[in-house]
Formats: sequence, C-alpha cells, structure tokens
Amino acid sequence: MGAQAEKWVLMVTARTPTNIAVIKYWGKRDEKLILPINDSISVTLDPNHLCTTTTVSVSPSFVEDRMWLNGKEISLQGGRFQSCLREIRARANDVEDEKKGIKINKEDWQKLHLHIASYNNFPTAAGLASSAAGLACLVFSLAKLMNLKEDNSQLSAIARQGSGSACRSLYGGFVKWIMGKEENGSDSLAVQLADEKHWDELVIIIAVVSARQKETSSTSGMRDTVETSALIQHRAKEVVPKRIIEMENAIQNRDFASFARLACTDSNQFHAVCLDTYPPIFYMNDTSHRIISCVEKWNRAEETPQVAYTFDAGPNAVMITRDRKTAALLLQRLLYNFPPQPDTDLDSYVIGDKSILKDAGIKDMKDVETLVGPPETKGNIVGEKSKGDVSYFICTRPGGGPVVLSDETQALLDPLTGLPN
Amino acid sequence: MGAQAEKWVLMVTARTPTNIAVIKYWGKRDEKLILPINDSISVTLDPNHLCTTTTVSVSPSFVEDRMWLNGKEISLQGGRFQSCLREIRARANDVEDEKKGIKINKEDWQKLHLHIASYNNFPTAAGLASSAAGLACLVFSLAKLMNLKEDNSQLSAIARQGSGSACRSLYGGFVKWIMGKEENGSDSLAVQLADEKHWDELVIIIAVVSARQKETSSTSGMRDTVETSALIQHRAKEVVPKRIIEMENAIQNRDFASFARLACTDSNQFHAVCLDTYPPIFYMNDTSHRIISCVEKWNRAEETPQVAYTFDAGPNAVMITRDRKTAALLLQRLLYNFPPQPDTDLDSYVIGDKSILKDAGIKDMKDVETLVGPPETKGNIVGEKSKGDVSYFICTRPGGGPVVLSDETQALLDPLTGLPN
Repeated sequence: MGAQAEKWVLMVTARTPTNIAVIKYWGKRDEKLILPINDSISVTLDPNHLCTTTTVSVSPSFVEDRMWLNGKEISLQGGRFQSCLREIRARANDVEDEKKGIKINKEDWQKLHLHIASYNNFPTAAGLASSAAGLACLVFSLAKLMNLKEDNSQLSAIARQGSGSACRSLYGGFVKWIMGKEENGSDSLAVQLADEKHWDELVIIIAVVSARQKETSSTSGMRDTVETSALIQHRAKEVVPKRIIEMENAIQNRDFASFARLACTDSNQFHAVCLDTYPPIFYMNDTSHRIISCVEKWNRAEETPQVAYTFDAGPNAVMITRDRKTAALLLQRLLYNFPPQPDTDLDSYVIGDKSILKDAGIKDMKDVETLVGPPETKGNIVGEKSKGDVSYFICTRPGGGPVVLSDETQALLDPLTGLPN
Repeated sequence: MGAQAEKWVLMVTARTPTNIAVIKYWGKRDEKLILPINDSISVTLDPNHLCTTTTVSVSPSFVEDRMWLNGKEISLQGGRFQSCLREIRARANDVEDEKKGIKINKEDWQKLHLHIASYNNFPTAAGLASSAAGLACLVFSLAKLMNLKEDNSQLSAIARQGSGSACRSLYGGFVKWIMGKEENGSDSLAVQLADEKHWDELVIIIAVVSARQKETSSTSGMRDTVETSALIQHRAKEVVPKRIIEMENAIQNRDFASFARLACTDSNQFHAVCLDTYPPIFYMNDTSHRIISCVEKWNRAEETPQVAYTFDAGPNAVMITRDRKTAALLLQRLLYNFPPQPDTDLDSYVIGDKSILKDAGIKDMKDVETLVGPPETKGNIVGEKSKGDVSYFICTRPGGGPVVLSDETQALLDPLTGLPN
C-alpha cells in the first residue's frame, strides 16, 4: 500500500438475480458446509424485476467489516457471512488501480476491512428468495473486488456456504446445483444447463400471497424434515435423481408439458415432505391451494399444460407459462379469481413487465371488475372469492446471471466515505 | 312361507358406531373388492354421540328392495350396496318367529325384498365417516335379520365391500383392519385390539371445520394417489407396517405419548401423500393447520403430549386427549382460538358430552368471551382469529360396537307397512 493510501476507497457494484427451484432443494447432509441431500434445478428470474444490487468497498480507513441491507446496518457476525468472507479472502489476489494509484497485495486482504451495502428491488419479507440473491451478490462482487481467478461455478461453491440456494444465482437461465460427493463440499456447486436465450418464450407470473401465519425458516424447517420425516430419504434417493434427468431433458428439448409436470409434482412433493415433518410444516395456505386449483383446472381443460406452478418455503406462487399469449390468459384468470382489496391501484397490483397486462386487455381496475369467469370454471370462481388474498402480482421471465455495474452512479456506497448514500 | 303370509313384516333395528383411523387407510390394491395396500387401526367413537341407526325389514308384500337415508329414499343400485346385499343373502339361514307365525326358509331370501331405513345422529355432510357407520350398520342389521352365523370379524369382510373403513365399525374400542393376502379378500377383515373399557380415560373432541372448498371424494382421491404419488408405496410397504406394531403396543400399554406421536405423524403422512398426488389433493385447510399449531404448541410446552390429532379426508380435526382434565383444558384453548360467530348458542356450539364444558368452567357465551390466552401462546392467538372458522365442537369418547335395539319404538320403519315412520 502506498504511504498516503489512507484516503482511498475502492469499490465494486454488482447485480445478481434471484432464482426459483423447479426441482427442489430440501434437506442438508452437512449443516455447516451446506451440502444438500439431492441435486436441484432452478430458473433464474429476470434481474430487472427481482434482483439484489450490492456495492462492496475496501479502504485502509475502515476499522471493521460492516454491512447495510436496504439501508439498515446488519450484523456480519453470523457463521454464514463469516464462511463466505473467509473463503473469499483466502482466494484474493493482487489488485492494482493505476489511475487511482492504489495497489493492494494479496496478503493485505486479511487485514483490510470491508464495507458492504446491499439492496433488493423487491420486498425482502415477501419470501422471494432474497437471501439467495443477496449471498450470491455478496460473493460475486467481493470476488471482483479482490480479483479472484475462480469461475462462477467455483464461486457458487462459496456462495453455497452462505445460503444453499444462493449457489444457483451465479448463472442466468437454467441452473443445476450438483450435490457433489466430497466431504469438504468442493464439488457441491452450480452449473448452467442453458442460458436465458435458450427458451425465451417462457413468461413468469408471481403471486405474492398474504400470509396469515408466521412461517418456519427454511433452515430449521429442512433440519426438522431430515430428522423426522419417514419419506424424505426416499424422495432424495429414489425420486429426485430420476426427476433431475427428466428435467434436464425437458429443458434441453423445450418440452413444456414435461417441464410443467415435473415442476408441479416436485413442488407438491417438497410440501408433502414438509407436512410429513414432525411437527408438520405448512408453507402453502388456502390461497396457495386455490391458485393451484385454478391452474390445474385450466391445464386439464386445455388437455396439455399451459402453466407450471412452484412454491418455495412460503405461500407465494411462481407460475411459469409456455408463452406470452398464455401469460395474458393466465393473468386474466388470476385477476378474476383473486381481485385486490377496494381502492387498490392496478399499477401497484400488477408490477414488473406491464406489457403482459396490456396483452390481457386490462387497462384499469374497471377492466378487472368486468372480467368474466374462464370457460373451464363454467363462470364459477375457484373456491370462495375473497378480495386481498393476493397482495400483488409480478410479471417477469427467465433472466441473466450476475453482472458488474460499471456505472458508478449505481453504487450504494459513497466513493469518498465508503458509507451508504 | 305360510299361506296368509302376505301381511307380515319382520324387522330388526341396530345401531352402529362410526370410527376414526389413527393409522390411516389410503389406497386400494383391488378397487372392486376394496382391498387396502396397508393395515389400519381405528378408535370407535361413542355411538351416543355419533352413530347410525338402521332398521331392516322383510315382507312378502314388498315388491322391490328400497332404502331411505335420513328420511329420503336413495338408490340401492350402486355396486357397493349390491355387493353387500348379495354377500349377505348368500349366507342367510332359516328364520322362524313362532309368535308371529313367520317361517322363512334359507332359499326364500333370494326372492324376498327388503326395506331399509337408516339415520345418522350427526350431519351426514360434515365428513364424519357417515358411510363407514352406515354400511357397517346395514350389514350388521341384515345379518341379524337373516340369521347369519358369521361373527363380527367375518361380517366386517362383507361391510368392507360396501365401504372400506366400514369394516372397522363392527367392533367397539380399538380395531385393526388386517389388509390380508388373499386375492378374493376373505382375509381382509377387522379384529378388535382392545375393547372400549381397556383405556377409558381417553376423551375425544371433534372440531367440525367450515370448508371453503369442495372436497375430493376419498374413493377417487385414493385412486389418484395410488396412480400418481411417488411416495405412497414407500409409505404402505416400509412405513405403515412398523407403525402398526408400535400403535398396537401403545394401545396395549395405554402409552399415550407413543399413541399421540403415531396418530399425529400418521395423519400428517396421509395428508402428505395426498399432496404428493397429481393433481394434488388438499383436505386440510388453514383452520385445520391452526388447530394443529394450537395442539403442537401446547404439547411442546407440556413436554409430553396432552392431545393427539387426526384428520380424515376433510378439514375436521379429531383430537384425542389423555383424560377428562386435559380435555377441559383443550376445550378452553379451542374456544379461545376458535370462537363462534356472533349470536351462536353455546349449546349448539359444543355438543355431545357437555360435562366437559362444565369441567372447563364454561356455562355460557360470556365465559367463552372472557377466556384468556393459554400460557404457551403468551396470550397470543394461534394465527389470525376469525369467528366462525369452526362450525361446532363435539365432545365424545371411545365407544362400543354395534348393538341390536330390541325396543321396537326405536324402529325407523312402520311394523305394519314397512315404510318410514
């Protein structure tokens, strides 16, 4: 480090997507290293609608590692943050910024402190895998800052130690997390099956469902499942390996019918083993059930699946439709069956890619109110119609992987002080 | 038959209990004979609170077989009724009533027609195994009328062909339905594990839950599960056999902790395989989930189970408590968390054995309104409190098996006309 180095702040800002598993990860064989009991496959969601942006910075003037999430300082003491920071520092390399006259030697990273600011462009509490995008973004941006030579797959094995499903956010498109065999976890990492352009007709609609009950964290939930479910080992050893192969083929061949069947049955089986846990874990609620009924009725009426659904550790539905036309028809059905509470603005009830709303011929709340029941329900609603069961919908699509944002105006930390803007 | 026999009507009236499985029956290996894929164990419920009463009658003046259920004529053409009638007629014997001057020869039963009237002392639509009690009562009363020599276990194999779980209603107390091995189903029958006096401290509270959605019939539901669930065979072959042995031991030893753990986990696993069915089947709803949370919280706080819960193919909760004292404490908790809609009469909100209500110190709705939250919830309610989620509660206990009612005033058919009273 230079003599008058005390003043400089070096920063990297990156953006990382969230992802939704279509073959689920549930259950660890190693709690500390976060090694799963089965492979999983996910779709990366378009970061324009759902992503984490993280700025990481280093300066000799920083006296401790600090982190801010959505503008609020949070503790970095947790074992998972510490695992990621330790693994990345161990792989750090020399960094030189000639323009700024900064030179950091490999060894310096052990002593230098970091400031980290992270921001989700979607509600953190909504149960939309914010920790996956967050940890992936932390690892990715730190790897850039510290000039790591590892590729994204190797970085995914580090992100995995922060939050299991985070490893799948290191790639866009369709991603497989290989469970691996090694005890040290070195081969438990993510690989890309296909990028987001491979199957770009797909459209995704997320229903953010109002929860009546507090949820079990996925960490403790999956631990309880592994300890108490009489079905989880059969799922992990006998059922999932076959589904992984079938899902890889479905993605390769853009075979929507197989993709939908696998995604739906695997989501349902994940919730089945949660229910087989003692005490039982319920992530889906009556609204989730009604969304499934609505989709299943339509799929059955069309004779071939139009929509796949999948639910993570919460009541929100992620629906993947075969194309834009289907997405518009789905949105009509969803708005008919799940109208908002009175005086809700359409603009805040359907967010993300609004062009789907336009395709559905819906310009304002009047259009929602005058929707007629879809033919497959003979005009009946699915279950009892209750306004406000869904908080809002997000229209999106499969998207790309992590990127560095070179535009400095997007940084979340002040380039002079290294404190949140 | 005597020459002026045209006038006589011979009748038998019997009462048969309903039952609730604590190790569940779900899945058939033979649809026609109703042969299950695993053994099951049930508790017979006190017929004073939940039972079917059936009068069967025969007369040479009857021109066809007819049946009335709760006063309304229903068709006997269904394959299941026909199976039972055929099997019973095939085993009929000579009957002589000297007082009335009636003599029926064995062969006559093939030509004589029957009138049958059946009545449930609980709502048929409430999902409380009315078909189990109904078919068991039909078979039991016809067996008495036609002077069958078969014991109740052999009769259970006939009732089984009407409705699988009906076979377990041929005995009181604790009953096991042995799945059997024979292709013709002759060894698929019920045996009594212990009578109702064996463990007479148990008290049962049933929450009849208001359903928002129409339910899948158990017949088609279990067919779909066998055809589509990747977990059901593992459950039937690997999990249930062990649980059957453990449950028999728990009942033998009146080991409530084991009994509760087995009943709860098996109920949850039955609902798990329903969820693993494609399309998924949901029988429990948010209210069912909240009842489970309420019980689990309390059990955990007490460190040893106070209450076992079990749910059949619907949202109703059947809760079995270790004794009267616990039942009173449970009823307080249930009434606190699940208050009735305004202007509900306490007398219609808690039915059955009202002495439990008295033990709980609740005399009127004012007492319900002033209940305080149980200590394990720190005064909070479990989930969101919504009046009317439960329709009513039934307090009952394990009870006895089928009995003939010799008091003719209890007959449901007119002794002269053979038509409903």
